[in-house]
Amino acid sequence: MNFGSDNVWGASAPVLEALVRANAGAQAAYGEDEGTKRVERRFAEIFERDVAVFLGGTGTGVNGLAVAAAVPPWGSVVCHREAHIIDDECGAPEFFSHGAKLYGLPGIGAKLQPEEVAAFVDGLPKAVKQMPPKLLSLSQVSECGLVHTREEIAALSAVCRERGMALHMDGARFANALVRLNCTPAEMTWKAGVDILTFGATKNGCLAAEAIVVFDMGLAETLAYRRKRGGHLFSKGRLVSAQFEGYFADDHWLANARHANAMAARLAQGLEGVAGVRLAWPCEANEVFPILPRAVDEALQRAGFLYRAWSDLSLPEGERIGAGERLVRLVTSWATEEATVERFLVTARDAAQQRAAE
Amino acid sequence: MNFGSDNVWGASAPVLEALVRANAGAQAAYGEDEGTKRVERRFAEIFERDVAVFLGGTGTGVNGLAVAAAVPPWGSVVCHREAHIIDDECGAPEFFSHGAKLYGLPGIGAKLQPEEVAAFVDGLPKAVKQMPPKLLSLSQVSECGLVHTREEIAALSAVCRERGMALHMDGARFANALVRLNCTPAEMTWKAGVDILTFGATKNGCLAAEAIVVFDMGLAETLAYRRKRGGHLFSKGRLVSAQFEGYFADDHWLANARHANAMAARLAQGLEGVAGVRLAWPCEANEVFPILPRAVDEALQRAGFLYRAWSDLSLPEGERIGAGERLVRLVTSWATEEATVERFLVTARDAAQQRAAE
Amino acid sequence: MNFGSDNVWGASAPVLEALVRANAGAQAAYGEDEGTKRVERRFAEIFERDVAVFLGGTGTGVNGLAVAAAVPPWGSVVCHREAHIIDDECGAPEFFSHGAKLYGLPGIGAKLQPEEVAAFVDGLPKAVKQMPPKLLSLSQVSECGLVHTREEIAALSAVCRERGMALHMDGARFANALVRLNCTPAEMTWKAGVDILTFGATKNGCLAAEAIVVFDMGLAETLAYRRKRGGHLFSKGRLVSAQFEGYFADDHWLANARHANAMAARLAQGLEGVAGVRLAWPCEANEVFPILPRAVDEALQRAGFLYRAWSDLSLPEGERIGAGERLVRLVTSWATEEATVERFLVTARDAAQQRAAE
Amino acid sequence: MNFGSDNVWGASAPVLEALVRANAGAQAAYGEDEGTKRVERRFAEIFERDVAVFLGGTGTGVNGLAVAAAVPPWGSVVCHREAHIIDDECGAPEFFSHGAKLYGLPGIGAKLQPEEVAAFVDGLPKAVKQMPPKLLSLSQVSECGLVHTREEIAALSAVCRERGMALHMDGARFANALVRLNCTPAEMTWKAGVDILTFGATKNGCLAAEAIVVFDMGLAETLAYRRKRGGHLFSKGRLVSAQFEGYFADDHWLANARHANAMAARLAQGLEGVAGVRLAWPCEANEVFPILPRAVDEALQRAGFLYRAWSDLSLPEGERIGAGERLVRLVTSWATEEATVERFLVTARDAAQQRAAE
Repeated sequence: MNFGSDNVWGASAPVLEALVRANAGAQAAYGEDEGTKRVERRFAEIFERDVAVFLGGTGTGVNGLAVAAAVPPWGSVVCHREAHIIDDECGAPEFFSHGAKLYGLPGIGAKLQPEEVAAFVDGLPKAVKQMPPKLLSLSQVSECGLVHTREEIAALSAVCRERGMALHMDGARFANALVRLNCTPAEMTWKAGVDILTFGATKNGCLAAEAIVVFDMGLAETLAYRRKRGGHLFSKGRLVSAQFEGYFADDHWLANARHANAMAARLAQGLEGVAGVRLAWPCEANEVFPILPRAVDEALQRAGFLYRAWSDLSLPEGERIGAGERLVRLVTSWATEEATVERFLVTARDAAQQRAAE
Repeated sequence: MNFGSDNVWGASAPVLEALVRANAGAQAAYGEDEGTKRVERRFAEIFERDVAVFLGGTGTGVNGLAVAAAVPPWGSVVCHREAHIIDDECGAPEFFSHGAKLYGLPGIGAKLQPEEVAAFVDGLPKAVKQMPPKLLSLSQVSECGLVHTREEIAALSAVCRERGMALHMDGARFANALVRLNCTPAEMTWKAGVDILTFGATKNGCLAAEAIVVFDMGLAETLAYRRKRGGHLFSKGRLVSAQFEGYFADDHWLANARHANAMAARLAQGLEGVAGVRLAWPCEANEVFPILPRAVDEALQRAGFLYRAWSDLSLPEGERIGAGERLVRLVTSWATEEATVERFLVTARDAAQQRAAE
Repeated sequence: MNFGSDNVWGASAPVLEALVRANAGAQAAYGEDEGTKRVERRFAEIFERDVAVFLGGTGTGVNGLAVAAAVPPWGSVVCHREAHIIDDECGAPEFFSHGAKLYGLPGIGAKLQPEEVAAFVDGLPKAVKQMPPKLLSLSQVSECGLVHTREEIAALSAVCRERGMALHMDGARFANALVRLNCTPAEMTWKAGVDILTFGATKNGCLAAEAIVVFDMGLAETLAYRRKRGGHLFSKGRLVSAQFEGYFADDHWLANARHANAMAARLAQGLEGVAGVRLAWPCEANEVFPILPRAVDEALQRAGFLYRAWSDLSLPEGERIGAGERLVRLVTSWATEEATVERFLVTARDAAQQRAAE
Repeated sequence: MNFGSDNVWGASAPVLEALVRANAGAQAAYGEDEGTKRVERRFAEIFERDVAVFLGGTGTGVNGLAVAAAVPPWGSVVCHREAHIIDDECGAPEFFSHGAKLYGLPGIGAKLQPEEVAAFVDGLPKAVKQMPPKLLSLSQVSECGLVHTREEIAALSAVCRERGMALHMDGARFANALVRLNCTPAEMTWKAGVDILTFGATKNGCLAAEAIVVFDMGLAETLAYRRKRGGHLFSKGRLVSAQFEGYFADDHWLANARHANAMAARLAQGLEGVAGVRLAWPCEANEVFPILPRAVDEALQRAGFLYRAWSDLSLPEGERIGAGERLVRLVTSWATEEATVERFLVTARDAAQQRAAE
């Protein structure tokens, strides 16, 4: 009954089992354990190239570290104005980078348009009083549930490359985007021009497993010190590495993401058939953003469904939330059961019909 | 065979089981889970008073946060010159505090003497060019394995109180010290004048479970923001809270610590009977610091025992490491088996006898 | 011929003479000189109350320090999106505050509207992931040359007070605003609810003389340390204090500001009579923002007049810069000569007539 | 009568005159003035090579910036434990560098010994928990008034070079050291292996004129931004550039330094002839550190002479301050008059004789 977030659920079984398995015996501390080394190699396989990998435990931690690796204290970051890094991390990027500035641009569906980024960056005065833009950060999946295509990523990367900026992907929902695009991890990242990636696994079936994956090796040099100093190097490294081992084994991570996306697609499809309900943005991953008539919203809440209101800052042009409506976010996960989805849809449908009847 | 550190081991069974148990079902994210609330209340019971509790995952993280809570960027911290916070955290206290200075004082056994602290602090010029001392940090257990008595803590606290400084206890091995003193957690902390505590559970049977426990409530005000911004608030809070629930249940934590200390005591007692071996400092918790003849050291290593060389900076007056000797650290834990201890002692004894025979 | 900025000129005669006079003899260092003490008392007289005063040498330095005094590293500042502190100081507020965030709001004439500030602040989620707003900063004179009335300041202060925010005035052109309002310094600041002021004198006849004037004494506690640590405490304090002594003597500062404002008023009045020229915002202090036909602009530049293009972000509703137009800024100062103003106007008028004739 | 410091005096006449001269007319702001450009070229001539120059106004400011240019936030600096940067700047290096650590080593006369630096650096563990040493900072003149010879500087530089560390010279009394060594500025700096210099002129005849002179151009890249962001770029750049123009013209700076040193030499020579007085360290520049019998000290103070007590941390081996003695510092400057020196000596001599008589 909980569509509040994908982090309200624990670990999926293979991840938990891997953790239990890895618990036994002595292992070197501080990231020198065998599991960590295996996981680092595994990332190289998954991304089909040499990568520098820094495991961590929280999305805010790895995002802050990744931004700091790419931007000096007097530099700036361009991102969407609803990006997680600018809006939801209590200034972690500013903290880890020692005061860099984040410029938040508008954009429908929380996606940046290359030409708008270019215009913004080119419009900044080139002077010592100005903080030079050094990084573009995009969220894959976006904060409105949209997935950047490989072409879109490449276009943003081109804007960066011409202006000496690095490209960061906040991959908190990396797997959900990946299975949607049906491409390889390499294609969605460095082959499209991503320089540094925060690879999230927590939301998709782990308890606390995140990684910074660096493709532009120059950005990796400082991260070992930054991570230690930020308190993000676990003494018992197996905690994170074991989760990743379970996560990657037998493509479990992709299965988890496919399930979550399918549940969201079912929700979206069902909601589009409910009178008075429309979707703010298309459902492309594991989130659905319906605009609900108040009566439907209330019926769902009464029935015990949990979800959150969402911002209308990035609606498509012309779209507006009416007085009797509410824009909400539904998140599905590896743990979402089909029966719950159906029950949700039935409840919504009933409420809509009753509303129509009144 | 591993005496390298207490963090080379995983979680003890009750802790792991609690984690597995807590994995099921939906729970509010970002520290709002029921388990976290229960653990926060549990800390209040354990310390017999209201406390502010901030759970975290790494010792470096919670130490950095605790120091920052008590010291402004232009303030300074007095600690032993071998303290973990000054020597082993890549500047985490400086990072979290935005540049505070740590003054490391000498002291036998990595313990600070109240009169020396007082003399040092009183000798600092009171001027704007000087960074005013705002915090004293002591490690319980000390970096040389010694346990501060309640009287010693109270004496250091008195020095602080007269000079407007707060008292921080780095309790990475809190439980090991506690069972040694055979007193209550309250007696070892706030009743002796501790204002803010980093309470470590990772080394004593968890995988990643640390907490900042604040007794001087004024020091707690900023910590929720600092923790979030530092990336130390877990989205799936149950990861840490569940470990603590298993840790505290049925006094499991005290049992773990007693076992570890007993194993260390057995090691110490045995080693004192080995010809040519002496202890650099008495064994008071779960660490033993023997000075080994080279031949004994080599025999132990050949036999596969793992342990680390240790610093001789804080030896008792008059004590010196000879040319053919090596000062090492042996750490025991909840997972150390008595048979391994005995095998270690036999190996040492044999080597010593052979050496005597040659 | 230079209308580029008020900081292209040196010190006015009484200021320079005071500096020369103060040069003789030995004086205590690091702000303990007699002159500094006299100036601190003088500020108290000028503001008709106890104030804490911290002299400095650059606007960016004192602004950064003042913001840091009022906002924790995880807090945020609300200001206009064209405010000097957000746009022209290379992140000094972020640097001194250790990473606070600046929210830039729109507003005509670079002025904030109380109701919009209130709506923005009230719309920020109250959660640990959000950086709590702690300070409102307004520029007096605004970046578009407008002067906040006492009522406007009081209205912004009321918004702050209800929300636990402090109010900062960036008074880089304090004197120019003051003589415009024809009120007392007290009336324009603390009586209208300003908590902390950066008082600029450099632009109005000094070489490098700035001060932080604190009315809310709680905000003053950290500033002595912050200033020293930031390198803004001069060893030879007389450098700054002497300038202030010359500045304040015989109301010289007000005379300087009156002259600068009168020159700007003359410019504005004259330009309004030039065909094809209009003012983007009314002239209220020592800056004029004409929108010039290209031909007029070019003629002025050819004639050797220096000035800068300006941003059109904060134009009045409905106003737009046409394809053949340019929005520029003219700044007058204590050193601007009436003859230069007249020559400017004649040149503009001639160019406009010639244009009309063609 | 004031031997308290060389910063109790104002500017010498040629410096003040240059400032007055430069005051007239319009000049580009923010370091783009012609004077600044001339001074930057002058530095290149003086140092006989390309240099990057960053003018500033305070020693603490330029020292903080210079350290930050050479050391990442997680790096460390080796310096003498009485170095100004570690002891007298309220943590400015930590502030500007965002938390780097300063290691203070002992050394007679506040000078570092190359072999001791090497041993210290080589003894630091090479691990991510350790802050890697990136900079050695020496004070020329040292905090005990000693001048490093070119050979000593080169020897320290060699230690740095082998360990990937840069060499910083804190040249607060650069000119006093230079005339003592009777060599060229190039010989005392980059030819001896200095990578980055803070060049002080304030103490030697200016009011506020300091410069960072960078020889290793890689260290210059970030400084323009750092300086602006730290509030150390003056809007009216002529303030500093004019002082430097007067300072350098006709070798005025060297004349000032020679006078100051000569006055100190006279003081030292005279004091050595006073019964019961001895010098803690030889007089090599413009400071004298006599150990005075209490009676002599009191007589001098009664006579109105001003000077400060000094630390005995870096006394030569075997030297001690007796119960009836006081170690003090006398500083001479360009403004010190010979008659004052003689009066000081007469007063001391008389007091010593009277003491002998009693």
